[in-house]
Amino acid sequence: MSEKKAYGALVARFNRMSALGGAGAMLGWDNAVMMPDGGADARAETMATLGVISHEMMTDPVVKGLFEEAEVEALSQHEAANLREMKRSYTHANALPADLVEAFSRATSECEMTWRGAREQDDFKALLPSLSKVFDLVREIASVKSEVLQLPIYDALLDEYEPDCRQSIIDPLFAELEDFLPNFLEEVLERQAAKGAYEKPEGPFDLEKQKTLGLKLMTDLGFDFNRGRLDTSHHPFTGGIPDDVRLTTRYEEDDFTQSLMGTLHETGHALYEQNLPKEWRGQPAGEARGMALHESQSLLVEMQLSRSEPFLEYLQPKLIKVFKRDGAAWEFDNLKKLYHHVERGLIRVDADEVTYPLHVILRYRLEAALLSGDLQVADLPGAWNDGMQQLLGVTPPSDRLGCLQDIHWPGGAVGYFPTYTLGAMAAAQIYKAAGDAIPERDEQVAAGEFAPLITWLRQNIHEKGSLYSAEEILTQATGSGFGTASFIEHLKSRYLPE
Amino acid sequence: MSEKKAYGALVARFNRMSALGGAGAMLGWDNAVMMPDGGADARAETMATLGVISHEMMTDPVVKGLFEEAEVEALSQHEAANLREMKRSYTHANALPADLVEAFSRATSECEMTWRGAREQDDFKALLPSLSKVFDLVREIASVKSEVLQLPIYDALLDEYEPDCRQSIIDPLFAELEDFLPNFLEEVLERQAAKGAYEKPEGPFDLEKQKTLGLKLMTDLGFDFNRGRLDTSHHPFTGGIPDDVRLTTRYEEDDFTQSLMGTLHETGHALYEQNLPKEWRGQPAGEARGMALHESQSLLVEMQLSRSEPFLEYLQPKLIKVFKRDGAAWEFDNLKKLYHHVERGLIRVDADEVTYPLHVILRYRLEAALLSGDLQVADLPGAWNDGMQQLLGVTPPSDRLGCLQDIHWPGGAVGYFPTYTLGAMAAAQIYKAAGDAIPERDEQVAAGEFAPLITWLRQNIHEKGSLYSAEEILTQATGSGFGTASFIEHLKSRYLPE
Repeated sequence: MSEKKAYGALVARFNRMSALGGAGAMLGWDNAVMMPDGGADARAETMATLGVISHEMMTDPVVKGLFEEAEVEALSQHEAANLREMKRSYTHANALPADLVEAFSRATSECEMTWRGAREQDDFKALLPSLSKVFDLVREIASVKSEVLQLPIYDALLDEYEPDCRQSIIDPLFAELEDFLPNFLEEVLERQAAKGAYEKPEGPFDLEKQKTLGLKLMTDLGFDFNRGRLDTSHHPFTGGIPDDVRLTTRYEEDDFTQSLMGTLHETGHALYEQNLPKEWRGQPAGEARGMALHESQSLLVEMQLSRSEPFLEYLQPKLIKVFKRDGAAWEFDNLKKLYHHVERGLIRVDADEVTYPLHVILRYRLEAALLSGDLQVADLPGAWNDGMQQLLGVTPPSDRLGCLQDIHWPGGAVGYFPTYTLGAMAAAQIYKAAGDAIPERDEQVAAGEFAPLITWLRQNIHEKGSLYSAEEILTQATGSGFGTASFIEHLKSRYLPE
Repeated sequence: MSEKKAYGALVARFNRMSALGGAGAMLGWDNAVMMPDGGADARAETMATLGVISHEMMTDPVVKGLFEEAEVEALSQHEAANLREMKRSYTHANALPADLVEAFSRATSECEMTWRGAREQDDFKALLPSLSKVFDLVREIASVKSEVLQLPIYDALLDEYEPDCRQSIIDPLFAELEDFLPNFLEEVLERQAAKGAYEKPEGPFDLEKQKTLGLKLMTDLGFDFNRGRLDTSHHPFTGGIPDDVRLTTRYEEDDFTQSLMGTLHETGHALYEQNLPKEWRGQPAGEARGMALHESQSLLVEMQLSRSEPFLEYLQPKLIKVFKRDGAAWEFDNLKKLYHHVERGLIRVDADEVTYPLHVILRYRLEAALLSGDLQVADLPGAWNDGMQQLLGVTPPSDRLGCLQDIHWPGGAVGYFPTYTLGAMAAAQIYKAAGDAIPERDEQVAAGEFAPLITWLRQNIHEKGSLYSAEEILTQATGSGFGTASFIEHLKSRYLPE
């Protein structure tokens, strides 16, 4: 054991940072679900303190020496993978000077706050100064990280959200989607119009009943309520820690589909967290593998599974029973129309799975141009609207419904958007592989037996943690890395069936 | 400012420890109110990590030098008080060697767990080994602290719960109560018997209605819901931090008085926390001044105020309205009998204000004897039962209803019990002083106008924080330090009115 002394010291240090991170995660949940407004200042102070202490532990000069020693210790393959992930966190945390981190944190807090008002007032000009400031700092951060990580500037940002992912991987994939989607969308909309509109199930839908239904679906899908909860918050999210996952949703009285699909989406995230490898708790190797795989798990449940015909067969009688309704709106074919509805929408978070990638491609293009300096922040509204017209065939009537809709850039998250679509692609690929491995999957799903599917996901995705790269996990599970084929095939078979 | 450099560094360090403490307080609330069982291990790890980091910050060798420098800096009177309180925490934290702290923490965790089973099984023998171990360690801790603090061993423990309090202060006070109470109790019980029993209001009482009533009373008493919440937990408590006070209660369907008085008791604690001096947030001088004053605030609301005739005049119509009941049980005189009922009970937490001090005196006596070695842990059940017979005139039929009832000793809290009765004494003294200062108090209370009383408490108790000693605060507010006179006068006038 003595030859693993440095590695052991690093493990202890990362365990401690993980415990602090867990405290922060729980308090973050509390912020959104429980905290009265007057607690905000003290909470911000506490969160900042947890962050600063963690950062000090990561940038302590002793750590560099521990890494050097640990590199030559006799580690198992998994330990070496853990060391590699420790090193990755360490490199990102140490790349930036403290004053830049602080300036960025202040600028993004301020910009997020300004953004809320600017969006409400549809006033891009009000946001311009603080958003310009954020992008100035993002460019500075990207340039420093680019140097340290020896990566092009966009990749240097992307790597924090999606380790090892590069523009050289994304660009050809997005080009394929951009080639395919606009014409496909046109065809889907024609077919949809020919079939006629769906009938909207009429509310009100009792909130308690919506919750009962959500809890039932979560239970059937294998969410472990001994290690997690469902609560309500303004923006649904999956928070907490693997052994205490705090999932939230939001209920609207006139539309049960929002809370339902929101809960299913977050349940996909939650199952990933709950099934992460238990023996690597508290260590980087035990964490979820990047944003794309995380999103693949939520989209697999929400899009691949929950909008599939077998799932709708399972769901339809439950809807009728819970809400005690009947009639044309509740017939299988109408529900299918409802859940497969496609449109040229303006808002990303409301988008269907056909148009969603086009929203992402637009943002990806724009943020890359903003980062390189090819686009000025002041010119964003025009560029946004041109892009929407070109990609989706619609022009936003206002910035509120255009470039002011997302919090990501005001929050400084540049390099994040592409992971949504990488996740959608991976979801299709993984769902297909699971179907190949479990030939009776569709019959099981229709009967509400999700255990075989979830077990397969656990074994092939969740339990891998960060012991391998996303590309490796995907390849082990499906036979190939990130690609568009399964996603395109899925869209064709769902939206333009022969 | 440069002459306050060391003091400033200490302020920054204590702010950080306070933020960590705030995180722990919130997570403690979450444990009791929200957390699913499966989260327990990870939560314990997080709590331990927060504790260890705080302890490291307090025992960092640099701190000693900062204190030495700060002592000679030019501080204001309040800053000097803050420095004194910093020093007190520092001295307590640094008194014990780390291995003793760890052994104690392990032994008390284990003993608490054993205690739960032993109490349920009425099996003192099962608890004996672990409780003996705890007392061995308590004696060791007391002996080390006695050396460091230059105090007798019991005082060395007491000082952590009630700064500056000593046995030499407590003993004569408790002797006065012991002189007075047994005969007084006899008389009260005779008078009570002559009046006839109260009629118990009959349930069930809808839990939502109980909650509505509790929220209404909290609001009327001035609890700031912008900086706090009311929730439900198995054991009621007041947790959180001053700007986000998390109060809990417990509802029973067949007895609304439990949740009601529980909520009022905790509201007394909560008002103290919410009204602590804002300019001293995060600093020791801004914290509540010891357990006795804290308990004085809960007992002032629960016992002095809420069981007073003017308050019952305010409360009675509300009870009738909320629960939609009527009849003899709901008449003013019957409610008064109910809320002034006295009995020779076995259980401390269910005791009325006449017998409660006798329960405390018993425990104080026994823990002092266990600490000095005059009493062996094995002989506790016999000594307990003898003491109950002598002080209260009843002998517990089982250890479950005797020496197994409290968690304090299994949890290692020796030196805590006396603060309950010091608090009851202070409550009477403070309530009397408030009445002298606000001649219309009783009319205001009957009309539900609590603001003048609470404002007086805020100005005279709450806002003092720990800028003065408890004895000083009490003297400034009431004209004298801890004494029995007001308490005895209060008991006489409530239970044996002329």
